[in-house]
Amino acid sequence: MNMKIKQLDSAQDNFQAQLADLLAWEATNDDQLDLAVRNIISSVRRDGDEALIALSNQFDNTDFTDASSFEIPMAVCHDALANLDDQVRAALELAAERIRTYHGHQLAESWTITDDYGSSLGQQVTPLERVGIYVPGGKASYPSSVLMNALPAQVAGVDEIIMVSPTPSGELNPLVMAAAALAGVSRFFAIGGAQAVAALCYGTATVPKVDKIVGPGNRFVAAAKRQVFGRVGLDMIAGPSEILIIADETVSPQWLAADLFAQAEHDELAQSILISPNPEVLSAVQQALNELIDTMPRQAIIRASIEGRGALIQVASLNEAVELANQIAAEHLELAFKNADQWVSKIRHAGAIFVGGYTPEAFGDYCAGPNHVLPTSGTARFSSPLGVYDFQKRSSVINVSADGAKILADCAGLLADHESLSAHALSARLRKEG
Amino acid sequence: MNMKIKQLDSAQDNFQAQLADLLAWEATNDDQLDLAVRNIISSVRRDGDEALIALSNQFDNTDFTDASSFEIPMAVCHDALANLDDQVRAALELAAERIRTYHGHQLAESWTITDDYGSSLGQQVTPLERVGIYVPGGKASYPSSVLMNALPAQVAGVDEIIMVSPTPSGELNPLVMAAAALAGVSRFFAIGGAQAVAALCYGTATVPKVDKIVGPGNRFVAAAKRQVFGRVGLDMIAGPSEILIIADETVSPQWLAADLFAQAEHDELAQSILISPNPEVLSAVQQALNELIDTMPRQAIIRASIEGRGALIQVASLNEAVELANQIAAEHLELAFKNADQWVSKIRHAGAIFVGGYTPEAFGDYCAGPNHVLPTSGTARFSSPLGVYDFQKRSSVINVSADGAKILADCAGLLADHESLSAHALSARLRKEG
Repeated sequence: MNMKIKQLDSAQDNFQAQLADLLAWEATNDDQLDLAVRNIISSVRRDGDEALIALSNQFDNTDFTDASSFEIPMAVCHDALANLDDQVRAALELAAERIRTYHGHQLAESWTITDDYGSSLGQQVTPLERVGIYVPGGKASYPSSVLMNALPAQVAGVDEIIMVSPTPSGELNPLVMAAAALAGVSRFFAIGGAQAVAALCYGTATVPKVDKIVGPGNRFVAAAKRQVFGRVGLDMIAGPSEILIIADETVSPQWLAADLFAQAEHDELAQSILISPNPEVLSAVQQALNELIDTMPRQAIIRASIEGRGALIQVASLNEAVELANQIAAEHLELAFKNADQWVSKIRHAGAIFVGGYTPEAFGDYCAGPNHVLPTSGTARFSSPLGVYDFQKRSSVINVSADGAKILADCAGLLADHESLSAHALSARLRKEG
Repeated sequence: MNMKIKQLDSAQDNFQAQLADLLAWEATNDDQLDLAVRNIISSVRRDGDEALIALSNQFDNTDFTDASSFEIPMAVCHDALANLDDQVRAALELAAERIRTYHGHQLAESWTITDDYGSSLGQQVTPLERVGIYVPGGKASYPSSVLMNALPAQVAGVDEIIMVSPTPSGELNPLVMAAAALAGVSRFFAIGGAQAVAALCYGTATVPKVDKIVGPGNRFVAAAKRQVFGRVGLDMIAGPSEILIIADETVSPQWLAADLFAQAEHDELAQSILISPNPEVLSAVQQALNELIDTMPRQAIIRASIEGRGALIQVASLNEAVELANQIAAEHLELAFKNADQWVSKIRHAGAIFVGGYTPEAFGDYCAGPNHVLPTSGTARFSSPLGVYDFQKRSSVINVSADGAKILADCAGLLADHESLSAHALSARLRKEG
């Protein structure tokens, strides 16, 4: 059955307004949601494990009776890994190995420099001690998300990785447990929602307080993260997932259609956009979408996503397409055209760039190596994929020599005088006496 | 006049409870403040420059009449720099040069690796396009803050640096303007508070929308940052400033007292703590505090800070002192004892580490080179000093070869099957056909 997908043309007068409309998405500032989440957080701070039990039973339809019922022992996860079908285990291990290798290149090292007066200045890099990983539960409970969240923490050298993931109606996902075992998760709690964020932020008798919480979640999770911002480290707040494809006639329209559908099948709000300077590519893709849709098990979601938020955009040139891509700052950007590798350096804003026809987003979702937790909704303008750098931090190290102190004392003293900070000035100048 | 400063001893039974009390500080979750800030943000989104004019006139006692009255032309800043007293200009330039040199070492580079199948995987690093720098106004309007916020952005290669700083009663600070000129600020708006954060986040006719906002501010600014979290990049939310000094008898008690006062003179809520395994050091410092306090121009603030939130802590050993330091995760940590450089690697959590008696915090505040915008209130457990890395971001780059695609197609296909994402599986497997 034919699909109705928005068709835009950058040559139209009102193109920028149409594009703004297409991209419009804002996390609703929902006062009722905020209040509900504030109450959940307060009750976890006040009642600890008891609140976690009551809230999980209420929202996730579990039947927890005490704290031991929501901790899944890691031995159970290791069993799940051991019992995995060989082929699936090999795939999971290949993915983990590639992710580990890629992320190993992100490790930052400490460094020191010495100035002309023998003072040394440096940066000491250390891993976080304990982090929390939020893995969505239920239908969106993905083993790949476990790998993508936990492995960078493991590579960074984090001491303790605490995973939380709700288990609606108590259903455990063996692949998720296997991935947790494979990725070095230290403890796994079957809790989710705002209550899990609160538990990780403040700690309960059972759930240890962590230094940072990463991983995407639903709107309750997003609201809870916003409320604890500043108290605990956070990654980002995820919006709906998106793909932007720039294509020419050298890549199969069927491949492109499948890539658009792969994005769309996540969620009705997911966004799939394809841009081409070649109108024939756009109509061939439109046709491929029509042909393919009926074969898709998740066609209802795909149709809602493509018809609601998808678009095919005609542009004048590849140059214009790249300009648009930089304006949109997509989470996933496919450069599916000839000599695409020569265009990568022109991309200023994108979460991940998939270069050439043999690089569908799906490879990056699972096993290419780079992370699949990426900045959405244009936030690639200022943020990065989840990485090892999210699990390391830096301390400045300053070691001034007696000679160096004489120079710095005058400089700091004078500037402190002009900021009317006399104790600063005194503290600096006393070092000349040494 | 003698100062009453808390005396703790780690050998006491209730020491951990006393320490928790001493460190307790939480940004109040003030519903009224949140509501007021939400209204300010809405009115800036709705009325743009008009709201900025009205709110500044109301809160900052300015008499702005139109948008041109709150933009200070950069030519005025360059004049301020040109008119600076020679000595002051030299000090500002030395500080800027040292800060620039240090931060140059933080620049991240793009990289690419190639796997066994000829696929390449990499990370492309790019600077942010446009950032906003919040510089507190009035009495706390410090030229050093301008350098510390703007220079890392300039080193990162940010295209446009927008500075905002309120000018209560319209008073401009020539040194702040000079520092802005020196540090490559692109535009300067004399606005502050939640309205300035809103303007930077959403943009107005006059103030351009930025990608990230950095710099500390008062509680209105902190509340506004919390509310726009996720829409715009942010650094951290600053709490009161703190110093933790570990000292032995090799450093002058007068120097140590001056260092404690330098921290305390910032603000009544600032925290100054000194730890020593030597009780004689503690009493010598207590005496030096008593002797020095009456000479301090800001003695009222210092006294309130030291008596309200300061402490001298007796410990059993340097080892225990370092353990405590890691527990406290102070913004500023001075290691003022013999062979301190051999202890730096034992420090896991601290914003900045000042090593040895010749390195007072004041050097780091102005001119040692590292940044003075540092994580407070124990957030050094998960965050870093402001740095060039705050103004760069990364995009993953994946370029899979035809051979590589065959391997990844099977792996991604199988994992997608197990996540019930059929379009992902199809999109991956189609690449085997190529």
